[in-house]
Amino acid sequence: MTAYVELMAYQRETEALAAVSGRLGWDQETVMPRGAAQQRSDEMAALEGILHARRTDPRMVDLLMACEPQGPVQEAQVRDIRRSHARAAKIPARLAQALAQVTSLAQGIWADARRTDDVAAFLPTLAQVIALKREEASALAGAGDLYDALMDDYEPGATAASTGAMFDRMRPRLVALREAVLGAPVPDALVGHFAADAQMVVARDLASAFGYDWTRGRLDLAVHPFSSGSGHDVRITTRVIERDPFNCFYSTVHEVGHGAYEQNIDPDFALTPIGRGVSMGVHESQSRIYENQLGRGRAFTGWLFGRMRDVFGDLSVADADGFYRAVNRVQPGFIRTEADEVHYNLHIMMRFDLERALISGDLGVADLEAAWNDRFASDFGVAVDRPWHGMLQDVHWSVGLFGYFPTYTLGNVYAGCLYKALGDAVPDLDQGLARGDTSAATGWLRERVQQFGALRSPRDTVMHACSGAAPSEGPLLDYLEAKFRDLYRL
Amino acid sequence: MTAYVELMAYQRETEALAAVSGRLGWDQETVMPRGAAQQRSDEMAALEGILHARRTDPRMVDLLMACEPQGPVQEAQVRDIRRSHARAAKIPARLAQALAQVTSLAQGIWADARRTDDVAAFLPTLAQVIALKREEASALAGAGDLYDALMDDYEPGATAASTGAMFDRMRPRLVALREAVLGAPVPDALVGHFAADAQMVVARDLASAFGYDWTRGRLDLAVHPFSSGSGHDVRITTRVIERDPFNCFYSTVHEVGHGAYEQNIDPDFALTPIGRGVSMGVHESQSRIYENQLGRGRAFTGWLFGRMRDVFGDLSVADADGFYRAVNRVQPGFIRTEADEVHYNLHIMMRFDLERALISGDLGVADLEAAWNDRFASDFGVAVDRPWHGMLQDVHWSVGLFGYFPTYTLGNVYAGCLYKALGDAVPDLDQGLARGDTSAATGWLRERVQQFGALRSPRDTVMHACSGAAPSEGPLLDYLEAKFRDLYRL
Repeated sequence: MTAYVELMAYQRETEALAAVSGRLGWDQETVMPRGAAQQRSDEMAALEGILHARRTDPRMVDLLMACEPQGPVQEAQVRDIRRSHARAAKIPARLAQALAQVTSLAQGIWADARRTDDVAAFLPTLAQVIALKREEASALAGAGDLYDALMDDYEPGATAASTGAMFDRMRPRLVALREAVLGAPVPDALVGHFAADAQMVVARDLASAFGYDWTRGRLDLAVHPFSSGSGHDVRITTRVIERDPFNCFYSTVHEVGHGAYEQNIDPDFALTPIGRGVSMGVHESQSRIYENQLGRGRAFTGWLFGRMRDVFGDLSVADADGFYRAVNRVQPGFIRTEADEVHYNLHIMMRFDLERALISGDLGVADLEAAWNDRFASDFGVAVDRPWHGMLQDVHWSVGLFGYFPTYTLGNVYAGCLYKALGDAVPDLDQGLARGDTSAATGWLRERVQQFGALRSPRDTVMHACSGAAPSEGPLLDYLEAKFRDLYRL
Repeated sequence: MTAYVELMAYQRETEALAAVSGRLGWDQETVMPRGAAQQRSDEMAALEGILHARRTDPRMVDLLMACEPQGPVQEAQVRDIRRSHARAAKIPARLAQALAQVTSLAQGIWADARRTDDVAAFLPTLAQVIALKREEASALAGAGDLYDALMDDYEPGATAASTGAMFDRMRPRLVALREAVLGAPVPDALVGHFAADAQMVVARDLASAFGYDWTRGRLDLAVHPFSSGSGHDVRITTRVIERDPFNCFYSTVHEVGHGAYEQNIDPDFALTPIGRGVSMGVHESQSRIYENQLGRGRAFTGWLFGRMRDVFGDLSVADADGFYRAVNRVQPGFIRTEADEVHYNLHIMMRFDLERALISGDLGVADLEAAWNDRFASDFGVAVDRPWHGMLQDVHWSVGLFGYFPTYTLGNVYAGCLYKALGDAVPDLDQGLARGDTSAATGWLRERVQQFGALRSPRDTVMHACSGAAPSEGPLLDYLEAKFRDLYRL
């Protein structure tokens, strides 16, 4: 047996155990009894201890030294294992376990605090999480930047400086578009009561329409929709608000984008390092292009309009054009996950700045609420009315996901690039979408992006799909301006 | 740190990982997508590899040698760890992983075969499971009996010889009772259509009535109802048949008995070896006394009759006495889990004999169906009409649970002993039960049995509750004869 074969056999078990950890995460956010929180955090810590020990096992070092990968697939596997080993070797086992334990518990504390608008109940836990993440970042960064070290986990190769520079280039055009749109007449919203059961029927139709494979997945409810798992067990979640069916429908399509990415990776890569989405940014590019460029486009919303009338009867908007406008209504709301395409990236830029300050130590948790509310009023022109709508809205910080938020906008940027390339490759895309048939688009994404998993770097993954063009913010901004100037008749 | 403290810290992590494995089992039987079966078997095998390595770790040997347990709790912990280590040390890691992998896959194959009545599709898998279990039994048994070695996993201290002798003593009285009952007029059954949603409302009421703690558990649907987990995450399942609400209700009460046992163990024992039910027999004593002696008694069925009329309106039986007779109707059915109290143990005796022959090699899988059908016709006087109703009905053999079936009858025997002791301790028990208040009974069981977990041996656990009386089949048979002679006016 060659060192490579032995290394991969060992790694395969590690991947299987990591998949188990992911499954426990799904369980915790969908079905776990609330009283199980402490016990679950012990379980997660024990499993993290095992994973950490495997990733730093001396046998791994020997095998990594000895193995001679052949060809791009083997090279990518070894590169990834090396990276994961090097990362784990810098983190003391005690810290890895403490992070697993604290963040598992913190999630429930955050959820309770959010429900009761109780910032004070959350701050001690948040402070604890930040202290551990700073400790982790120091261990990883060496002499480098703390935030970069964290961000690298989610988007290998990205830095705060390059991301911040891109955000600075994007902001003026987004702000100008926002101001133009908000100065125009507001389209009618879809109003009415949409029964939860019926919403779920349509949500399942949407998932099927976007190619979600039900034999290898399921759809459940969660407070904060997410997707989970890879290979043959990729689960998605959504939520239901009976006065706002678009929340459920577009959460579903978004998570189907994530789920389809994982389901469509080359089965030969299953339970290996490259058998998963390459980065959070590329992941988000899939969820976003499914949700926005495809799902919220004029062609597909025409089909959805008909499907909703089948299920709910006459709607408050009379025709497909009014429906398209209602789906894409621009409003400065509090909640990131409900934000329209014009506002969405402004939410991210705000979180990016705040979390960099939390990690650098420039901002303490005691001052976070005021900093959030000030910045929100300044960027969105509205005062935050309650913590649920402000700093308590997102799960991310409670579970230690610092450096994750910017990947959402990176994902939008990648989606912009991919949508341009898709349009060049499939000029009659909208003909299928108007019939609810997404296969030309989802087939192209599967062939050009999804099947490769983490074979290439995030940047190279996007470039490969875009015939060599480097990712940039231009196509996204062009798309947004064209769509909303048309929609708002500017 | 003393060796004992160190040993327990290590063991606590092992217990947490074992709890994770249990949680995956729950997932597999309730929510897992069908396409995930192969991947899940890899995950289970990886986790089993970790558990096996921990149980046989040389550090454990050193710590077991060095530790000096103080008092009965520490002694019980160390005894249990020693036992688990000795067991694991006899099983090669390869075999432990193969068993985890094969039985995880086999469950789905069994479920498919059962659904399609396709014995041939199941036999190769069953042969593989039996071969692995025989290999395991040989490793465990040394020069001893193979079946005893397997049975010891579920009921420490029990042997095939002593169990068989007890079954031989029970059989004549059970057969005589069965013949007498079947010669008497048959009471009216409850007939009608009982909507699934409404059944689940009553099922939840029943679980609450029997003290199930919802903050540390949940109720889901499964093909084959089971309970899962311990401590703060103890989940139960049931099934719904719309023409037969008692199936759902008594499956629920049965699983609540299992679940309450785990939920009521001293919290100080959580994630330790004694923090779980001591044996399958004692476990079954709890589920059975909840289900039968309490749940199917005249007093409690009076309350259930009223509750069902609240939910379903008028019933096909007119009064509480007719309802009590309908609940306890005796019929020679095919399905063990639907069997009445008179027939139930005859189902077990048949499986006990068949599986001993499978493990000894006297019976090959190719001859199992004929052997099953012959024996069923002889014991029950009815010809099996399809494999689903015959050898494919139970999940146990597919997942390698050989030696498990006899613990069901042991559980009934223990339940008979406990019910006698409970009646002596709480003479006015039925007054509460008639109001749907089980607290006198469940409180007594919690105090006398459940809180102790695996502190004492199975036999000593029952003896402790019964003021020192050794378990025997007498009280169960006395109870059955008294109940059914009264019910059938014999």
